[in-house]
Amino acid sequence: MNSTESRRQFLRQAGLSAAVAALAGPGAVAAVASPLTNTMQNDDKKKLGWAVVGLGKFATEQIMPNFKDCKHSKLVALVSGTPDKAKKLAKEYGIDEKSVYDYQNFDSIKDNPAVDIVYIILPNSMHAEYTIRAAQAGKHVLCEKPMATSEEDCKKMIDACNKAGKKLMIAYRAQYEPYNLDAIARIKKGELGKIKFITADHGRHVKPTEDKADVWRVQKKLAGGGSLMDIGIYSLNAARYLTGEEPVEVTAQIYSDPNDPRFKEVEDNVAFTLRFPSGALACCTSSYSYQSVKRGRIFGEKAWLDLDPISDYYEHNMKIGKEDGEMEPKIQEGNQFAAEMDHMSESVMQNKTPRTPGEEGLRDVRYMMAIYEAAKKGKSVKV
Amino acid sequence: MNSTESRRQFLRQAGLSAAVAALAGPGAVAAVASPLTNTMQNDDKKKLGWAVVGLGKFATEQIMPNFKDCKHSKLVALVSGTPDKAKKLAKEYGIDEKSVYDYQNFDSIKDNPAVDIVYIILPNSMHAEYTIRAAQAGKHVLCEKPMATSEEDCKKMIDACNKAGKKLMIAYRAQYEPYNLDAIARIKKGELGKIKFITADHGRHVKPTEDKADVWRVQKKLAGGGSLMDIGIYSLNAARYLTGEEPVEVTAQIYSDPNDPRFKEVEDNVAFTLRFPSGALACCTSSYSYQSVKRGRIFGEKAWLDLDPISDYYEHNMKIGKEDGEMEPKIQEGNQFAAEMDHMSESVMQNKTPRTPGEEGLRDVRYMMAIYEAAKKGKSVKV
Repeated sequence: MNSTESRRQFLRQAGLSAAVAALAGPGAVAAVASPLTNTMQNDDKKKLGWAVVGLGKFATEQIMPNFKDCKHSKLVALVSGTPDKAKKLAKEYGIDEKSVYDYQNFDSIKDNPAVDIVYIILPNSMHAEYTIRAAQAGKHVLCEKPMATSEEDCKKMIDACNKAGKKLMIAYRAQYEPYNLDAIARIKKGELGKIKFITADHGRHVKPTEDKADVWRVQKKLAGGGSLMDIGIYSLNAARYLTGEEPVEVTAQIYSDPNDPRFKEVEDNVAFTLRFPSGALACCTSSYSYQSVKRGRIFGEKAWLDLDPISDYYEHNMKIGKEDGEMEPKIQEGNQFAAEMDHMSESVMQNKTPRTPGEEGLRDVRYMMAIYEAAKKGKSVKV
Repeated sequence: MNSTESRRQFLRQAGLSAAVAALAGPGAVAAVASPLTNTMQNDDKKKLGWAVVGLGKFATEQIMPNFKDCKHSKLVALVSGTPDKAKKLAKEYGIDEKSVYDYQNFDSIKDNPAVDIVYIILPNSMHAEYTIRAAQAGKHVLCEKPMATSEEDCKKMIDACNKAGKKLMIAYRAQYEPYNLDAIARIKKGELGKIKFITADHGRHVKPTEDKADVWRVQKKLAGGGSLMDIGIYSLNAARYLTGEEPVEVTAQIYSDPNDPRFKEVEDNVAFTLRFPSGALACCTSSYSYQSVKRGRIFGEKAWLDLDPISDYYEHNMKIGKEDGEMEPKIQEGNQFAAEMDHMSESVMQNKTPRTPGEEGLRDVRYMMAIYEAAKKGKSVKV
């Protein structure tokens, strides 16, 4: 075990689990401390079995390698439309060839008792179909965000999982990431005073001609939308988990260069504002054409707190500004992917609702639709 | 001359004048290099005479002490409703007692040939009356921002100065500040690529019970509005001078705690978005109740540029983020107050329109009224 792995191990066993538990409330604390989870530790056979559906860049570069840091989750099956890629990866990860599926025979996964949970990492518009098919095959589902491309699809996904008696969780990784969890805890403790504003910006260059992983992102039929659905959702979700509130009113402006072929179908730049019941306001941007940014700031009466980046994979920074100066708290980085997957496994093992269930995904989809509507109609939309 | 003064001297003579001139175009370059200004250097008798109207905190702590760094401007008269204060300050600044006026005898300033320019530093709603009276007394006018509390007043002020053949300039100090000028120059040179977004946040605690200077700021009749008129105007103006464009559409949300006595008459928190003709969007906030912040970021296709603070009196920071990393250019700080006042004096001496004339002030007032309207009606407002 190298020092990074050792730190991650420590984090999993101590800080992060406790932090996640603290945020999930007393029930979760009990869960973390329960005999079930304690006896399972380091017992590979008691890990739940996961199937990854969709073997794109995010799945192969971020999700699959991070099972190694999981306490309660192991990768046992793959689902892909590219048999050669799937076979190669199966060999690499020691996965039985019989546990490699394609999109036609996917439903036969119901006969594979090794698979407990299916992780959907497909283009947005396919989330609904594969979540529903997975639930009908008797599997629990972790689904990437945005949950779906319409509220209707979200509701169908929730219904299908409920009907099958299976858990549904949306992969809001930032809500399992130590810096964000620490920020939430500071806000709850009142360190910033009453929250007045959230600002958050998420942008990157989408490059469909250079990067295969970006091809579907500029196709409305697959992506459902542009920068808002893909990365603006981080700004939106952060505004919600940092305030702990649901927005009541939305305004927005959207602009895409009509001469840029990337934006024939999906939007480029989005500016939106949210109003929360407490009166806190959010002012957020997303873009597919500005130099990469992933940042958020919470403005409290007593202090502001920066996370920049707020939603990176491995590196975060926190800065807090108070009347008497600025500080940069150092928090132990953690493997948010492993934490997220283990939270799902624990939710299944303990028959508990995950912290970011289907209803959480539905809310963001509803608010994003309101943002599109506000921009289109040129008026604020109550949600 | 100490080292700070020496640096300022250097800056005035080299960097800042050149930067201001470059931005003002070829005409201004000629002006800076003209024999007139050259011969005037260090010739105190050729400085224009200024009267400061209103001896509040900003006038006495920022403006009056900074005449010492002016090449073309000297303080020769005071106007105040508090005779004792005015007399004390006159003595301190070596001003003739005959050049101390009150608000009743202010119009007799027309008979004082020592006064060329009147600087209005009164509560917002009084800007119109005193600008008009000063113009009618045959004086040029530098007026604090916001220019006035209605478009109608702004137009009356412009008309009065035109009719009297006098210059009118609005005190947008950030447009005479080296870091902001450097940012504008970088944008114009294309260093950031095409501009996609501006975000800017301006907040501070307004404390009318603790700070006399804040008493009028929470009174609608005097201030015209709350955080937007007072400090949100920095976010708005920055979005305009950084893009070099005029907005075409505005959305906004406003919230003030109904139980906070400070916000019985004026607004607290404002979130607004602007759309510019190029498609660039701005997403800005202002507040009277969050921990002090004065920051702006420009998001370009190739790089982003931070100014934090963007609108401080003496200290600024710039950070630029590109694909290959971040850099923090160090720019020589400059005395924006002296630069601003000297620009006004030079405009008068050379019979040129100032870079931030009445029309510039009118535009911001128009956009601020659109922001209020958008928030009130819950719809976007075309401007």
